[in-house]
Amino acid sequence: MMDTCKFCKIVKGEIPCYKIFEDKDFLSFLDIRPTNQGHLLVIPKKHYRWVWDVQENYSLPCNKVAQALKKAFHTDYVVSFVMGDEVHHAHIHLVPRFKDDGHGGLINLKNIKQFSAEEMKGIAEKIKKYL
Amino acid sequence: MMDTCKFCKIVKGEIPCYKIFEDKDFLSFLDIRPTNQGHLLVIPKKHYRWVWDVQENYSLPCNKVAQALKKAFHTDYVVSFVMGDEVHHAHIHLVPRFKDDGHGGLINLKNIKQFSAEEMKGIAEKIKKYL
Repeated sequence: MMDTCKFCKIVKGEIPCYKIFEDKDFLSFLDIRPTNQGHLLVIPKKHYRWVWDVQENYSLPCNKVAQALKKAFHTDYVVSFVMGDEVHHAHIHLVPRFKDDGHGGLINLKNIKQFSAEEMKGIAEKIKKYL
Repeated sequence: MMDTCKFCKIVKGEIPCYKIFEDKDFLSFLDIRPTNQGHLLVIPKKHYRWVWDVQENYSLPCNKVAQALKKAFHTDYVVSFVMGDEVHHAHIHLVPRFKDDGHGGLINLKNIKQFSAEEMKGIAEKIKKYL
């Protein structure tokens, strides 16, 4: 499983990502199907199938990047969701919300925003400033 | 704020709830607007406005109740979301998913299931068996 897991490959650097944050146990990078600018994922470096199996303290990296998102995009409102059937490696989505961002009460997963590689790079740099 | 906060009142026992789990720092109870049976909330006992401000390890109670949900409802699939604008006290939603449960890729918040008080009590008992 780990040999073919896309997120394990990102952890190993075999697939590139717009990296936001990394420590011993976790990695955070921009979602390439962003529902808003700054939509990112936080994943454990170790392969776990489900978020609920992760032994390391998942709150720490989530809190850290959420605070950076708030500052980078001047919003108080950072939502989060866990699905678990897209990629079979534990991951938490964090998405800053904006007034009139085109989503409903919860994030509409079909409402994907388009950003160029250059824009994604700029978004990652912007967030990283506040870590 | 804490004087008028609905969730602080639940913590203090001033408003009743279908309690699932409680430890020193966290409380879990059934959402009274369940999107599926077993839809529950995990909240810190201390009043925080946002999930991202919570200092205690939020992963621990979430993992614990998620594992109980999986066993109680025979599903591998427990999703989660954080919104933050419904009640201004940090809370994480956990929802077991089922085949043909009428939700899309993410939970449809308008798809509320109706359960009687007796059924809610039964659901709470069922989950608590697996804690």
